[in-house]
Formats: sequence, structure tokens, C-alpha cells
Amino acid sequence: MSNVRVVGTGITPFGNVPERTGRDLFAEASIAAFEDSGVPRDDVEAVFYGNFMGELAEHQGHQGPLMAEAAGVRAPATRYESACASSGVAVRDAVYRIRSGEADVVLVGGAERMTNLGTAGATEALAIAADDLWEVRAGMTFPGAYALMAKAYFSKFGGDREDLAHVAVKNHENALPNEKAQYRSAITVEDALEAPWVSTPLGLYDSCPISDGAAALVLTSEAYAEENDLDAPVAITGTGQGGDRLALHDREHLARSPAARKAGEEAYADAGVGAGDIDVAEVHDCFTIAEVLAIEALDIEGVGEGISAARDGRTTADGETPINLSGGLKAKGHPVGATGASQIAEVASLLAGEHPNSEHVEDATTGLAHNAGGTVASATVHVLEVVA
Amino acid sequence: MSNVRVVGTGITPFGNVPERTGRDLFAEASIAAFEDSGVPRDDVEAVFYGNFMGELAEHQGHQGPLMAEAAGVRAPATRYESACASSGVAVRDAVYRIRSGEADVVLVGGAERMTNLGTAGATEALAIAADDLWEVRAGMTFPGAYALMAKAYFSKFGGDREDLAHVAVKNHENALPNEKAQYRSAITVEDALEAPWVSTPLGLYDSCPISDGAAALVLTSEAYAEENDLDAPVAITGTGQGGDRLALHDREHLARSPAARKAGEEAYADAGVGAGDIDVAEVHDCFTIAEVLAIEALDIEGVGEGISAARDGRTTADGETPINLSGGLKAKGHPVGATGASQIAEVASLLAGEHPNSEHVEDATTGLAHNAGGTVASATVHVLEVVA
Repeated sequence: MSNVRVVGTGITPFGNVPERTGRDLFAEASIAAFEDSGVPRDDVEAVFYGNFMGELAEHQGHQGPLMAEAAGVRAPATRYESACASSGVAVRDAVYRIRSGEADVVLVGGAERMTNLGTAGATEALAIAADDLWEVRAGMTFPGAYALMAKAYFSKFGGDREDLAHVAVKNHENALPNEKAQYRSAITVEDALEAPWVSTPLGLYDSCPISDGAAALVLTSEAYAEENDLDAPVAITGTGQGGDRLALHDREHLARSPAARKAGEEAYADAGVGAGDIDVAEVHDCFTIAEVLAIEALDIEGVGEGISAARDGRTTADGETPINLSGGLKAKGHPVGATGASQIAEVASLLAGEHPNSEHVEDATTGLAHNAGGTVASATVHVLEVVA
Repeated sequence: MSNVRVVGTGITPFGNVPERTGRDLFAEASIAAFEDSGVPRDDVEAVFYGNFMGELAEHQGHQGPLMAEAAGVRAPATRYESACASSGVAVRDAVYRIRSGEADVVLVGGAERMTNLGTAGATEALAIAADDLWEVRAGMTFPGAYALMAKAYFSKFGGDREDLAHVAVKNHENALPNEKAQYRSAITVEDALEAPWVSTPLGLYDSCPISDGAAALVLTSEAYAEENDLDAPVAITGTGQGGDRLALHDREHLARSPAARKAGEEAYADAGVGAGDIDVAEVHDCFTIAEVLAIEALDIEGVGEGISAARDGRTTADGETPINLSGGLKAKGHPVGATGASQIAEVASLLAGEHPNSEHVEDATTGLAHNAGGTVASATVHVLEVVA
């Protein structure tokens, strides 16, 4: 089985640009990815595009062909949707396409236009990732759902809001040198604790922002990368996906993410590595508690121990396993359809020594990207390794 | 490379059931598919689900996990969207997943709830498959788009409304014995010509209905089917996909479908067959003119000759290559997310000798399913063959 090389990456600045369309954003990301790759557009055999709320935010479905056009590519294109894991699942099918031998060069990515809906409108649109019949009609939106998960965590494993504040402080700190990040401002634990409530126990700094943005990846087979002498030292060596019941009330425990655990175990086995091999990771911190749940599900931290990881410095930039050196969804931003692909771009860049935060992970050879949908009813994990 | 066996199929009745949700419809289709297959649900390793307008019709995104739950399956699930080709693209990625060796058993399908929006509401929702900025805002909906394509065809190749009426008459005739079909009533050429206009030159009987429904397929590797001694004589032996610019004004000619041609060529090459080997086909006749364009793009008819195929009996039930023996989208109905999977179910059933219309194709060994999105900006083609 051939490794899948990450030969080019492109990310737009994430932020508040309500006047820009999804096609405009994805065009920019794909131009950057092609320039980075040295691969001619004509070599692309398929396009895998992740988007979540285009129907509501842009009155636009059928975005596959539209985004191939925006990228200047004449290949068949499909849109993948799995809520906030939409480009995570797109990457998975792209990896399998290359592994099956059916394609050597693919374009993968995603975009989301959100801020044109306003904060309340975007929050309502995001809610369609939950179960409409049983959750949304009862008034549930995601800040409320993750607040329930945080309360369940505190109740079972201990910890408090101050522990979560350290996650936010860390991710804001990490975003400072990242030119693509939506928030490049340091915050203190006090800032986080004194911020307005969003949904108790979560405050403003526990929550990722509403963002516009896009990310694109050019992936190739190992053979193509070598034949064309591409500068592409990093490969996707493992992929995994997990699923769970959509509605939160159907879960075994609100503070567990079995979908992420399954995705991680599958990706580790696929790559032939263990959690202890992970030198650096981007995980899906749509809320601070989500980062805690993710690093436990991925076995980077033990069960009940993730809550202290940021506070005690194990996941900070110079800690044992730096988490979200990009700034994470929290500070880098979360244009949902772009997030999964952007995480892989960040990890590839960190491992290649080309990231503004690479200095913190100089000897890193193995990284991980974890993308989640809804209250982790969907999760994908990809393992990346330096192979050349 | 292993063939992919179609081991179980299930289709709900297509029709007007506005009170039923997508999850309800897909549960019914998947129950039928599992019963037909003899495969235990626990063996399913991944779910590939096609849906187009769930965000608008049901306020529901992130349908992958929801539909795995509806099907009683605990495997990771992804939603695929490519307008009316949504389950066609889902089948493709499912085929590649099995071929890559990463899965032996998958559940594939799709559903669409539409009639709860009403005819005008559903027509507006369908329009998001076109380019919102350049087509929809100018007032274009799909009846108008296909009317332009019909006019362009008549202008370049000849033919008239009466030729198209024969397509509708044929497909209504085919649907008579199909218990799942929305319209089981014979019509005459006169009925079609005297029907109300929808968008000149297309009338009511040139247009498929708005439909609710679901379809599901259990697909396995050849090894799994043989080891478990499954009654599954038909395999998907070829898959292809084509893409085109989304907006109709960007096409080289309004009466050509290069995306369908590419999909067909790729699927034929993949299966190692030619157009002349196709004994029976289901093609995407959302409008009568669409069937004409499809059979030409697939080389079942020569360019400019497809218009006379139904009239002259070449594509009728006892013709050279029967087209849409199920009744097609025209008479069987078109719950868009279900259509691509249902076409494959129909072809598999026809080839296995289990279809109410199998008597018309007793010696058939090779069939084809063609699914299209928008004005054929997306197209998938699958070749099915009797292999056991």
C-alpha cells in the first residue's frame, strides 16, 4: 500500500469577511496549494470538497463542480458533508482513492462562508448538525450541548472552569505567530474567567468563533511525488473514522467520545504507530472542553487526566505533546468545512519545519489531526509522518 | 482487483408521503436491503449515504450518523451530496473503499423528503443545484434549464415534442408492473402533447414528479460473498464519474453532456466492456430530453439519433436496448438522493431475473446505471454484470 504524500497546502486567512463567497475563498486556498505543490492542475484526477452549510449560508448546493471550477480544475468533483468534520471525511475518501490505485493526484479541501449570517444566524445554521427532531426543536444549540458535556465531565472526573481557561490561554498564545489566525491576541486566565457567559459553565473564551475561510491540499501517490521529484517530505500514513448516535441523549456518557476513540485507534493501527508516538497534534477544540475530550479519546492523555494537561503544561508549545500549535479552532478560527483540511495542512507544515511554530517541535516526525462533527457523532483522525 | 457484489437491495415505494421523514424512509429501504442480503448488520464497516436537500426540506444536516442509526448499523457514516447524483457518488466511493481492501461490507443508499415542501417549494429547493449567483438569481429553475437544452437539441439535430412524448409513453408503460413506481398509469402520445406546459417545449409529461423515497444497497467484496455463500450473482464491475462547469451558460453546447460521456467512457474502460455490450440501462430522465442526451452521451445511440430511439422502438421494453424498464425518473419517481442507488438496485434486479420486467431482458448479462446532477454538471455511470 502506497503512502499518500501531502505535496501542497493552502489556507486563507480565517476571519470575518462576510462579503466573500465560498468559491472565492476556495479559489484562494487552492491557488496557494497548487503554488506550494508544483503540480500542474491538469494532473488532478478528482476533487474532494468539504462544506457544511452552503445551502443555508449561500443558497448553494452541488458545490463539487463549482469548486473544481474555482480551482481551475477539469476533474470530477464531489461534495462531502459531515458537519464540522466535512473536510475530514473528504480527506479520507481521497486517501482511499489514491490507495486503491485509481488516482495519483487529487485536490482536497473545504470552505465555509458563515459570518454573513450573523452570530445568531450562524449558530442556528450550525444547529442542523444536531438531531432536528429531538434536539434542535427543544432549543438546543452547540454551546448548550458542549456545556452539558463539560458539566458531565466535571461531575465524573473533577476539574473546573479554570482548567478550561488554561486551554484557551494556550491556544491564543499558539496563534500569535500564525498569520492565518482569526485572533492573534494573548489572553489571561482571568480574562477567560471574567468573560461573558455563553452557556454555563462555558464562557466567551471557551468557544471558537464564527469564521469564513478555506483550506486546500494537493495529495499524490508516493510514486507520483518521487517521479516528479516533489519537495514533499510528509505523508498521510493513517486514516480512521468513527461514528456515534447523532443525539447527545443517546450516548453512553456525555463526557466520552467513542467515535473519536475508534477513529484514533483505526488511524494508529493503519499507520502502525501508537498514541505515544505522536509528537504534535491538531485536535477539534470547538469548545475548550472538546479539546479535553479529544486528547483523552486519542490516548494522548489518560481518562480524567486531560483536564489538567494545559494547566500543567503537558500540551503547551514546549510541553510533552503540543496540542493545537496553530491556535486551534479557538483562536485560529473555525470555518467548519475548511477545518479538517486546514488541520492537516498545519500538521504537515509543522512536521516539515515550515510552520511559524515549528521551532517548538524540531525533532517531530509524527503528527495527528482530529476533526469532529456535531457532539462528536462523527470523527476522523489522520496520522502524518515525515517519510522523505 | 476484486469485483464488488450487489448482495442486497431495498427500495421504498416512491411517491407522495409528506408525513414521512428521511430517516423513516431510509430505515425501510435498509431493512429491505438487509433482508434481501442475508448479511448481518454488525458486519457493515462503513455507510455511504446520499442526500441532496435535507437542510432545506428537513432542517437536517449531518445525516450520516442519523442514517446509520436508522439502519441499525454501528459503523462510521458519511453523507455525499452531488445534487441529483448524490447516491451515485456515494456508490462510487463505496466501490473504491471495497476495492482498496479497506472494507468487505458496506451499506450504501440515499433518501429524499421533498413533497412536504409542495411543488413550488421543492422546485425552488432543487434550484440550489444550479449556480446561485448566475442562474438562480436570474430566475432559472430546472424545468427552464432543460427546456433550453431541448430547444438547443431541436435546433442542432432536429426532432420535436412528439419524439419526446414517445419517451414519456415508454417510461409510463414500463412502470405499470413496478410496485414501487409513483405513476402506474399508461399515457398516450396525445396525452403528452395536450398536457399543460411546464416550460416550452416541455410539458407536464416531459417532467419527472416531486417524490419522497429511499433506496439502499448492501455491497460486499467478492471474497465475502463467496465465503458466505451469498445469493449475489451481480457485480458492479465498472465505475466512472464526469464533471462539468456548474452553470449552463459555460457549456460548449447546451445539447451535449460531456460529463456523462466521460463517466461512461471511464466506466466502460473500468469494466472492460463497450457501449455495444449494454443489454439494459437505467438513465437519468429527469426530463424526457435528458434521456435523449444521456443515451447519446453513453454511446447507446449516435449523436443526433437518440431523439428517435423511443419513437422507433429501439429503447422500448422489447427493443434493442431497453431504457428505464423501472419506469425511470419520469414514472417511477425521483426522490433525488435515492435515485442513483435505486437505479443500481433496478439494474441488479433486472440482471438477476427478479424484476417484474426481467422477462424483457432474459438473456441480459450486462447493464448500466447513469445518474446525473444539475444540468449534468455531475454524472456517474456504473456497469453491472452477471458474474456468478
